[in-house]
Amino acid sequence: MSPTKLYWEDFEAGQVRDLGTITPTREEIIAFASQFDPQPFHLDDEAAQASVFGGLCASGWHTCAMAMRLMVTNFLNNTSSMGSPGLEGIQWRKPVFPGDTLRLQSTVLETKPMGRRPDLGMTRNLWEMFNQHGDEVLRMEGWGMFKRRTPLPSDGL
Amino acid sequence: MSPTKLYWEDFEAGQVRDLGTITPTREEIIAFASQFDPQPFHLDDEAAQASVFGGLCASGWHTCAMAMRLMVTNFLNNTSSMGSPGLEGIQWRKPVFPGDTLRLQSTVLETKPMGRRPDLGMTRNLWEMFNQHGDEVLRMEGWGMFKRRTPLPSDGL
Repeated sequence: MSPTKLYWEDFEAGQVRDLGTITPTREEIIAFASQFDPQPFHLDDEAAQASVFGGLCASGWHTCAMAMRLMVTNFLNNTSSMGSPGLEGIQWRKPVFPGDTLRLQSTVLETKPMGRRPDLGMTRNLWEMFNQHGDEVLRMEGWGMFKRRTPLPSDGL
Repeated sequence: MSPTKLYWEDFEAGQVRDLGTITPTREEIIAFASQFDPQPFHLDDEAAQASVFGGLCASGWHTCAMAMRLMVTNFLNNTSSMGSPGLEGIQWRKPVFPGDTLRLQSTVLETKPMGRRPDLGMTRNLWEMFNQHGDEVLRMEGWGMFKRRTPLPSDGL
Protein backbone atom coordinates (compact mmCIF):
# COMPACT_ATOMS: atom_id res chain seq x y z
CA MET A 1 0.00 0.00 0.00
CA SER A 2 1.26 3.44 -0.89
CA PRO A 3 1.41 5.88 2.03
CA THR A 4 -0.51 8.54 0.07
CA LYS A 5 -3.98 7.18 0.83
CA LEU A 6 -6.83 8.86 -1.04
CA TYR A 7 -9.85 10.31 0.78
CA TRP A 8 -13.13 11.67 -0.56
CA GLU A 9 -11.72 15.20 -0.80
CA ASP A 10 -9.10 13.94 -3.30
CA PHE A 11 -11.67 13.03 -5.98
CA GLU A 12 -13.05 15.42 -8.55
CA ALA A 13 -15.12 15.11 -11.71
CA GLY A 14 -13.01 14.45 -14.79
CA GLN A 15 -10.23 12.43 -13.14
CA VAL A 16 -9.32 9.42 -15.30
CA ARG A 17 -7.34 6.48 -13.93
CA ASP A 18 -5.78 3.51 -15.74
CA LEU A 19 -6.34 0.54 -13.43
CA GLY A 20 -4.22 -2.08 -15.19
CA THR A 21 -4.92 -5.30 -17.07
CA ILE A 22 -6.08 -8.86 -16.42
CA THR A 23 -6.06 -11.86 -18.80
CA PRO A 24 -8.52 -14.69 -18.08
CA THR A 25 -7.49 -18.21 -19.10
CA ARG A 26 -9.84 -20.78 -20.58
CA GLU A 27 -9.59 -22.75 -17.32
CA GLU A 28 -10.58 -19.70 -15.24
CA ILE A 29 -13.52 -18.92 -17.53
CA ILE A 30 -14.82 -22.48 -17.26
CA ALA A 31 -14.20 -22.63 -13.48
CA PHE A 32 -16.18 -19.43 -12.84
CA ALA A 33 -19.01 -20.50 -15.15
CA SER A 34 -19.19 -23.98 -13.62
CA GLN A 35 -19.72 -22.44 -10.20
CA PHE A 36 -21.94 -19.44 -11.01
CA ASP A 37 -23.16 -19.35 -14.62
CA PRO A 38 -23.36 -22.86 -16.11
CA GLN A 39 -24.88 -21.88 -19.46
CA PRO A 40 -23.65 -23.93 -22.43
CA PHE A 41 -21.88 -21.03 -24.20
CA HIS A 42 -19.63 -20.48 -21.15
CA LEU A 43 -18.71 -24.17 -20.80
CA ASP A 44 -18.70 -25.97 -24.12
CA ASP A 45 -16.94 -25.08 -27.40
CA GLU A 46 -19.54 -26.59 -29.72
CA ALA A 47 -22.51 -24.99 -27.99
CA ALA A 48 -20.63 -21.66 -27.90
CA GLN A 49 -19.86 -21.77 -31.62
CA ALA A 50 -23.58 -22.23 -32.32
CA SER A 51 -24.51 -19.30 -30.06
CA VAL A 52 -24.68 -15.55 -30.75
CA PHE A 53 -21.19 -15.25 -29.21
CA GLY A 54 -19.40 -17.41 -31.79
CA GLY A 55 -17.07 -19.08 -29.29
CA LEU A 56 -16.55 -20.01 -25.64
CA CYS A 57 -16.71 -16.76 -23.65
CA ALA A 58 -16.67 -15.54 -20.07
CA SER A 59 -19.78 -15.07 -17.95
CA GLY A 60 -20.67 -11.39 -17.80
CA TRP A 61 -20.43 -11.71 -14.02
CA HIS A 62 -16.89 -13.03 -14.36
CA THR A 63 -16.01 -9.94 -16.41
CA CYS A 64 -17.49 -7.72 -13.67
CA ALA A 65 -15.56 -9.67 -11.01
CA MET A 66 -12.30 -9.24 -12.95
CA ALA A 67 -12.98 -5.50 -13.24
CA MET A 68 -13.54 -5.43 -9.47
CA ARG A 69 -10.24 -7.19 -8.88
CA LEU A 70 -8.37 -4.52 -10.83
CA MET A 71 -10.32 -1.78 -9.08
CA VAL A 72 -9.55 -3.14 -5.61
CA THR A 73 -5.88 -3.99 -6.15
CA ASN A 74 -4.96 -0.89 -8.16
CA PHE A 75 -7.23 1.68 -6.55
CA LEU A 76 -9.71 0.97 -3.72
CA ASN A 77 -7.22 -0.63 -1.33
CA ASN A 78 -5.27 2.62 -1.46
CA THR A 79 -8.32 4.72 -0.58
CA SER A 80 -10.71 5.23 2.33
CA SER A 81 -13.40 3.22 0.43
CA MET A 82 -16.44 2.18 2.47
CA GLY A 83 -18.16 0.09 -0.21
CA SER A 84 -20.87 0.85 -2.75
CA PRO A 85 -24.66 1.12 -2.50
CA GLY A 86 -25.05 -0.03 -6.10
CA LEU A 87 -24.72 0.60 -9.80
CA GLU A 88 -26.90 2.54 -12.22
CA GLY A 89 -26.08 0.36 -15.20
CA ILE A 90 -23.98 -2.48 -16.60
CA GLN A 91 -23.53 -3.13 -20.30
CA TRP A 92 -21.83 -6.26 -21.60
CA ARG A 93 -20.93 -4.88 -25.02
CA LYS A 94 -18.73 -7.60 -26.51
CA PRO A 95 -17.91 -11.19 -25.49
CA VAL A 96 -14.70 -11.84 -23.53
CA PHE A 97 -12.71 -14.79 -24.88
CA PRO A 98 -9.92 -16.85 -23.27
CA GLY A 99 -6.58 -15.04 -23.47
CA ASP A 100 -8.09 -11.58 -24.02
CA THR A 101 -6.14 -8.84 -22.27
CA LEU A 102 -8.64 -6.60 -20.51
CA ARG A 103 -7.73 -3.07 -19.40
CA LEU A 104 -9.84 -1.13 -16.89
CA GLN A 105 -10.22 2.63 -16.90
CA SER A 106 -12.20 4.68 -14.37
CA THR A 107 -13.52 8.22 -14.70
CA VAL A 108 -14.94 10.29 -11.84
CA LEU A 109 -18.24 11.76 -13.04
CA GLU A 110 -19.47 13.55 -9.93
CA THR A 111 -18.74 13.92 -6.20
CA LYS A 112 -21.14 14.90 -3.43
CA PRO A 113 -21.36 14.90 0.37
CA MET A 114 -23.36 12.06 1.93
CA GLY A 115 -26.48 13.51 3.52
CA ARG A 116 -26.68 12.05 6.99
CA ARG A 117 -23.01 11.14 7.37
CA PRO A 118 -20.62 14.06 8.05
CA ASP A 119 -17.69 11.61 7.90
CA LEU A 120 -18.45 10.22 4.40
CA GLY A 121 -18.79 11.40 0.82
CA MET A 122 -19.87 9.79 -2.44
CA THR A 123 -18.47 9.65 -5.97
CA ARG A 124 -20.23 8.58 -9.17
CA ASN A 125 -17.89 6.77 -11.55
CA LEU A 126 -17.75 5.33 -15.03
CA TRP A 127 -15.78 2.09 -15.42
CA GLU A 128 -14.83 0.95 -18.90
CA MET A 129 -13.05 -2.27 -19.78
CA PHE A 130 -11.39 -2.66 -23.19
CA ASN A 131 -9.88 -5.72 -24.85
CA GLN A 132 -6.55 -5.89 -26.72
CA HIS A 133 -8.32 -4.74 -29.92
CA GLY A 134 -9.54 -1.54 -28.22
CA ASP A 135 -13.14 -2.77 -28.17
CA GLU A 136 -15.15 -1.85 -25.09
CA VAL A 137 -16.34 -5.13 -23.52
CA LEU A 138 -17.83 -3.76 -20.27
CA ARG A 139 -19.27 -0.41 -19.22
CA MET A 140 -20.55 0.28 -15.72
CA GLU A 141 -21.68 3.38 -13.91
CA GLY A 142 -22.14 3.54 -10.17
CA TRP A 143 -21.54 5.06 -6.76
CA GLY A 144 -18.74 4.63 -4.24
CA MET A 145 -18.64 5.76 -0.60
CA PHE A 146 -15.40 7.11 0.89
CA LYS A 147 -14.36 8.48 4.27
CA ARG A 148 -13.56 12.18 4.33
CA ARG A 149 -10.08 13.17 5.43
CA THR A 150 -11.73 15.87 7.55
CA PRO A 151 -15.29 15.15 8.71
CA LEU A 152 -17.75 18.02 8.52
CA PRO A 153 -18.57 19.70 11.83
CA SER A 154 -21.86 18.19 12.96
CA ASP A 155 -23.50 21.66 12.94
CA GLY A 156 -22.74 21.70 9.21
CA LEU A 157 -25.51 19.20 8.51
CA MET B 1 -33.87 -30.43 -18.00
CA SER B 2 -37.61 -30.42 -18.19
CA PRO B 3 -39.04 -31.09 -21.66
CA THR B 4 -41.32 -28.03 -21.46
CA LYS B 5 -38.72 -25.51 -22.59
CA LEU B 6 -39.76 -21.87 -22.38
CA TYR B 7 -39.52 -19.52 -25.37
CA TRP B 8 -39.98 -15.75 -25.60
CA GLU B 9 -43.69 -16.14 -26.34
CA ASP B 10 -44.17 -17.82 -22.93
CA PHE B 11 -43.22 -14.71 -20.94
CA GLU B 12 -45.60 -11.97 -19.96
CA ALA B 13 -45.50 -8.99 -17.62
CA GLY B 14 -46.50 -9.86 -14.07
CA GLN B 15 -45.16 -13.43 -13.98
CA VAL B 16 -43.39 -14.10 -10.68
CA ARG B 17 -41.03 -17.06 -10.23
CA ASP B 18 -39.42 -18.44 -7.07
CA LEU B 19 -35.91 -19.47 -8.13
CA GLY B 20 -34.79 -21.30 -4.99
CA THR B 21 -32.17 -20.69 -2.31
CA ILE B 22 -28.41 -20.70 -1.84
CA THR B 23 -26.38 -20.48 1.38
CA PRO B 24 -22.79 -19.21 1.16
CA THR B 25 -20.28 -20.52 3.67
CA ARG B 26 -17.58 -18.43 5.30
CA GLU B 27 -14.99 -20.33 3.24
CA GLU B 28 -16.81 -19.55 -0.03
CA ILE B 29 -17.14 -15.87 0.87
CA ILE B 30 -13.41 -15.60 1.62
CA ALA B 31 -12.43 -17.63 -1.49
CA PHE B 32 -14.45 -15.36 -3.81
CA ALA B 33 -13.17 -12.18 -2.15
CA SER B 34 -9.55 -13.40 -2.23
CA GLN B 35 -9.82 -13.87 -5.98
CA PHE B 36 -11.96 -10.92 -7.02
CA ASP B 37 -12.62 -8.43 -4.21
CA PRO B 38 -9.82 -8.46 -1.62
CA GLN B 39 -11.12 -5.61 0.53
CA PRO B 40 -10.50 -6.05 4.28
CA PHE B 41 -14.22 -6.31 5.23
CA HIS B 42 -14.64 -9.37 2.96
CA LEU B 43 -11.54 -11.17 4.30
CA ASP B 44 -10.84 -10.31 7.91
CA ASP B 45 -13.16 -10.43 10.95
CA GLU B 46 -11.55 -7.59 12.86
CA ALA B 47 -11.50 -5.22 9.88
CA ALA B 48 -15.11 -6.18 9.08
CA GLN B 49 -16.30 -5.49 12.62
CA ALA B 50 -14.82 -1.99 12.40
CA SER B 51 -16.49 -1.36 9.00
CA VAL B 52 -19.99 -0.08 8.16
CA PHE B 53 -21.02 -3.74 7.66
CA GLY B 54 -20.41 -4.85 11.26
CA GLY B 55 -19.04 -8.28 10.32
CA LEU B 56 -17.36 -10.33 7.60
CA CYS B 57 -19.67 -10.20 4.56
CA ALA B 58 -19.78 -11.33 0.94
CA SER B 59 -18.54 -9.23 -1.96
CA GLY B 60 -21.52 -7.66 -3.73
CA TRP B 61 -20.26 -9.38 -6.90
CA HIS B 62 -20.38 -12.72 -5.09
CA THR B 63 -24.03 -12.03 -4.22
CA CYS B 64 -24.74 -11.23 -7.89
CA ALA B 65 -22.93 -14.42 -8.96
CA MET B 66 -24.97 -16.52 -6.51
CA ALA B 67 -28.17 -14.95 -7.86
CA MET B 68 -27.00 -15.85 -11.37
CA ARG B 69 -26.38 -19.45 -10.30
CA LEU B 70 -29.97 -19.78 -9.08
CA MET B 71 -31.26 -18.05 -12.20
CA VAL B 72 -29.35 -20.39 -14.54
CA THR B 73 -29.99 -23.67 -12.72
CA ASN B 74 -33.64 -23.04 -11.86
CA PHE B 75 -34.71 -21.02 -14.90
CA LEU B 76 -32.44 -20.03 -17.80
CA ASN B 77 -31.19 -23.53 -18.60
CA ASN B 78 -34.81 -24.50 -19.20
CA THR B 79 -35.40 -21.62 -21.61
CA SER B 80 -34.22 -20.46 -25.03
CA SER B 81 -32.04 -17.79 -23.35
CA MET B 82 -29.50 -16.06 -25.59
CA GLY B 83 -27.79 -13.98 -22.91
CA SER B 84 -28.23 -10.41 -21.74
CA PRO B 85 -27.11 -7.03 -23.09
CA GLY B 86 -26.96 -5.58 -19.59
CA LEU B 87 -28.66 -4.35 -16.46
CA GLU B 88 -30.31 -1.03 -15.65
CA GLY B 89 -29.48 -1.13 -11.98
CA ILE B 90 -28.04 -3.11 -9.09
CA GLN B 91 -28.63 -2.26 -5.45
CA TRP B 92 -26.77 -4.00 -2.65
CA ARG B 93 -29.27 -3.21 0.10
CA LYS B 94 -27.97 -5.24 3.07
CA PRO B 95 -24.76 -7.16 3.74
CA VAL B 96 -24.74 -10.94 3.15
CA PHE B 97 -23.15 -12.86 6.03
CA PRO B 98 -21.81 -16.46 6.14
CA GLY B 99 -24.65 -18.96 6.57
CA ASP B 100 -27.38 -16.61 5.31
CA THR B 101 -30.03 -18.42 3.27
CA LEU B 102 -30.70 -16.34 0.17
CA ARG B 103 -33.87 -16.77 -1.88
CA LEU B 104 -34.17 -15.41 -5.42
CA GLN B 105 -37.43 -14.20 -6.95
CA SER B 106 -37.88 -12.93 -10.50
CA THR B 107 -40.70 -10.83 -11.92
CA VAL B 108 -41.29 -10.18 -15.63
CA LEU B 109 -41.81 -6.42 -16.04
CA GLU B 110 -42.11 -6.10 -19.81
CA THR B 111 -41.65 -8.07 -23.04
CA LYS B 112 -40.94 -6.74 -26.52
CA PRO B 113 -39.80 -7.99 -29.92
CA MET B 114 -36.15 -7.40 -30.80
CA GLY B 115 -35.91 -4.88 -33.61
CA ARG B 116 -33.57 -6.34 -36.18
CA ARG B 117 -33.91 -10.00 -35.14
CA PRO B 118 -37.14 -11.75 -36.19
CA ASP B 119 -35.98 -14.86 -34.32
CA LEU B 120 -35.46 -13.18 -30.92
CA GLY B 121 -37.42 -11.25 -28.30
CA MET B 122 -36.54 -9.41 -25.12
CA THR B 123 -37.85 -9.37 -21.54
CA ARG B 124 -37.19 -6.82 -18.80
CA ASN B 125 -37.03 -8.42 -15.38
CA LEU B 126 -36.75 -7.55 -11.72
CA TRP B 127 -34.63 -9.90 -9.59
CA GLU B 128 -34.89 -9.71 -5.83
CA MET B 129 -32.86 -11.68 -3.33
CA PHE B 130 -34.03 -11.97 0.28
CA ASN B 131 -32.25 -13.38 3.34
CA GLN B 132 -33.76 -15.68 5.97
CA HIS B 133 -35.08 -12.64 7.88
CA GLY B 134 -37.05 -11.47 4.82
CA ASP B 135 -34.71 -8.52 4.24
CA GLU B 136 -33.99 -7.69 0.61
CA VAL B 137 -30.19 -7.95 0.15
CA LEU B 138 -30.01 -7.53 -3.65
CA ARG B 139 -32.25 -5.89 -6.24
CA MET B 140 -31.44 -5.91 -9.96
CA GLU B 141 -33.33 -4.88 -13.06
CA GLY B 142 -32.28 -5.85 -16.55
CA TRP B 143 -32.91 -7.34 -19.96
CA GLY B 144 -32.80 -10.89 -21.24
CA MET B 145 -32.81 -12.13 -24.86
CA PHE B 146 -34.72 -15.29 -25.80
CA LYS B 147 -35.35 -17.19 -29.01
CA ARG B 148 -38.93 -17.10 -30.25
CA ARG B 149 -40.68 -20.42 -30.62
CA THR B 150 -41.97 -19.13 -33.98
CA PRO B 151 -39.76 -16.54 -35.73
CA LEU B 152 -41.55 -13.61 -37.33
CA PRO B 153 -41.86 -13.81 -41.13
CA SER B 154 -39.12 -11.59 -42.52
CA ASP B 155 -41.69 -9.36 -44.27
CA GLY B 156 -43.05 -8.69 -40.77
CA LEU B 157 -40.07 -6.45 -39.97
